[in-house]
Amino acid sequence: MDTRTTFPTTLYVGVEDMVRLVQRVGLSACIAGVAQRIEAAFLRWNEFDKSARLACHSADGVIELMPIADAERFTFKYVNGHPKNTRHGLPTVMAFGVLADVTTGVPRLLSELTLTTAIRTAAMSATAARHLARPGSRVMALIGNGAQSEFQAIAFRDLVGIRELRLFDTDPAATTKLVANLAGQGLSVTVCTSIHEAVRGADIVTTVTADKTNATILTPEMVAPGMHLNAVGGDCPGKTELHADVLRCGPVFVEYAPQSRIEGDVQQMPADFPVTEFWQVLAGQAPGRTSAGQVTVFDSVGFALEDYAALCFVHDTARALGIGEEIDLVPQSADPKNLFGMLQAPAEVVRIAA
Amino acid sequence: MDTRTTFPTTLYVGVEDMVRLVQRVGLSACIAGVAQRIEAAFLRWNEFDKSARLACHSADGVIELMPIADAERFTFKYVNGHPKNTRHGLPTVMAFGVLADVTTGVPRLLSELTLTTAIRTAAMSATAARHLARPGSRVMALIGNGAQSEFQAIAFRDLVGIRELRLFDTDPAATTKLVANLAGQGLSVTVCTSIHEAVRGADIVTTVTADKTNATILTPEMVAPGMHLNAVGGDCPGKTELHADVLRCGPVFVEYAPQSRIEGDVQQMPADFPVTEFWQVLAGQAPGRTSAGQVTVFDSVGFALEDYAALCFVHDTARALGIGEEIDLVPQSADPKNLFGMLQAPAEVVRIAA
Repeated sequence: MDTRTTFPTTLYVGVEDMVRLVQRVGLSACIAGVAQRIEAAFLRWNEFDKSARLACHSADGVIELMPIADAERFTFKYVNGHPKNTRHGLPTVMAFGVLADVTTGVPRLLSELTLTTAIRTAAMSATAARHLARPGSRVMALIGNGAQSEFQAIAFRDLVGIRELRLFDTDPAATTKLVANLAGQGLSVTVCTSIHEAVRGADIVTTVTADKTNATILTPEMVAPGMHLNAVGGDCPGKTELHADVLRCGPVFVEYAPQSRIEGDVQQMPADFPVTEFWQVLAGQAPGRTSAGQVTVFDSVGFALEDYAALCFVHDTARALGIGEEIDLVPQSADPKNLFGMLQAPAEVVRIAA
Repeated sequence: MDTRTTFPTTLYVGVEDMVRLVQRVGLSACIAGVAQRIEAAFLRWNEFDKSARLACHSADGVIELMPIADAERFTFKYVNGHPKNTRHGLPTVMAFGVLADVTTGVPRLLSELTLTTAIRTAAMSATAARHLARPGSRVMALIGNGAQSEFQAIAFRDLVGIRELRLFDTDPAATTKLVANLAGQGLSVTVCTSIHEAVRGADIVTTVTADKTNATILTPEMVAPGMHLNAVGGDCPGKTELHADVLRCGPVFVEYAPQSRIEGDVQQMPADFPVTEFWQVLAGQAPGRTSAGQVTVFDSVGFALEDYAALCFVHDTARALGIGEEIDLVPQSADPKNLFGMLQAPAEVVRIAA
């Protein structure tokens, strides 16, 4: 019996494939698709085997593994954070990940996740803002105009209704790049010369800065009643963006409290500082914003469940569109107990056609 | 300035490439090379950032991530264990892994590790036995004749001097396969009809069984003075091979105590049951075997440092031999702050030639 055709295969979606996928589907549709899957996954919160990510810190950065699983799919992401990388022409953040079958352990997708992480982070931010920001929010300050900023801008335009952006970055070249990239996207863009200026009049403030330091991008006097703060860049121990008193301006929402208390801006607060896990708001188990004048804070660090949602989106979309290629990451052997036998065969015989 | 040629690249070594690598180098030389690197890595024990592996258990198996790093290299392995997989023609254990630069986070090698894990496990077992078994050991019982057994046999022949094997498996077809695969390897092989029979007269007993249960492959009455027990298959919670009293027959050596107490045969013992980490023996900080009549037990579960050693071997060997291919797992962009810009370009432009 030839059982070879029944072997589950591993699909590889590299950077070039992912660019093709996003171009085919459209960036807005990708963000919306991932956002939809994030919301669906967060509503199944208790079905997931969750853990804080495993971080390996070094002098120049951090490398993290982010696993999660439900009864059917196991996913993990590898992601680094090395702020000095840009000096060598390398991205600060690079990522890839795997989706595997829980019942067999077979990896079904190996995917680039650098581009995809920007999409899923923006999808997460906009999903949170859709539920937490003041209805009718139209103006967003975008502090930090690096690799993630365009994705945040488009996600908030599409999912929240933002029409006007106020930009600031300590690196004017980053802002210039962002302005150029957003041309023709239907967004009114103002370049500001200070954080203060950018934040003034904003309905939503998104901070997405990269320095691995305890920075105070936002201080309490910048915060106006009714603002929603989308704090994305405070995401590892010793890396924060908000002054501690900003976290006292209104209710703080997080993805997964055990991880956020280590990595998020709330790392500055006592262990019993009250936070609400965002899934509880989605599920109707906890209030979100309770008045138009309230300040809401989404202290986002990036959680494995968001990557699970993104990997599911990439897997299903790539397979549907025929993007990517099968790779021989694990053996497909007719006699799984005879690993040694593979070494006796001519190497060409080992790979079994998809 | 064209900085593209300076980007570090990611090498992919799939199953077919790995077969080619092992065929080119020779299995014995691969085992010896990995063993040498394992010993060197264990001697640098305190330079590594270690953690017990992250395990995701399900009804049918387990999926694990095993990260480790020193100041230069970060590695992790993905590995599953699904005993029922063979019913579907799939391997019980499949693995792959990554080696990355700690200073930049760039992944430098993505490699199959199914074949490689068999090599590194055998190299670890034989390295431990070389230091713990009675000098002059020539006869080994091999209980469990599945995918790993040939590798154990050859490693013990090459590194320990084993000349005679006594085989047992509950599945006679596995033993038949092992006998056939070992033909012409310079080993005298006896097929036994029980564990008792296989163990009688052996200098070393290797147990490498796969059932995810608390089994008692070895009981105290089988253990003779001077034996070295190489217990490989008790490697996750609820999966043991040795009767608890076997662990009281002599000193027990483990790889990394915090992980072994969760996963190894010593999971059956109280938290203060004495174990010696094998690196201490290598480093001369703890005694190994102290008499010819002593029973020694290596309760092996597989530790990330062994995969680090294996990934370093694969990386260096594959690059030296020109095996494997460059893949676009992470972006190589001239402007790392302009991830969005990649989406504007024709997809073909995104991949930069190695």
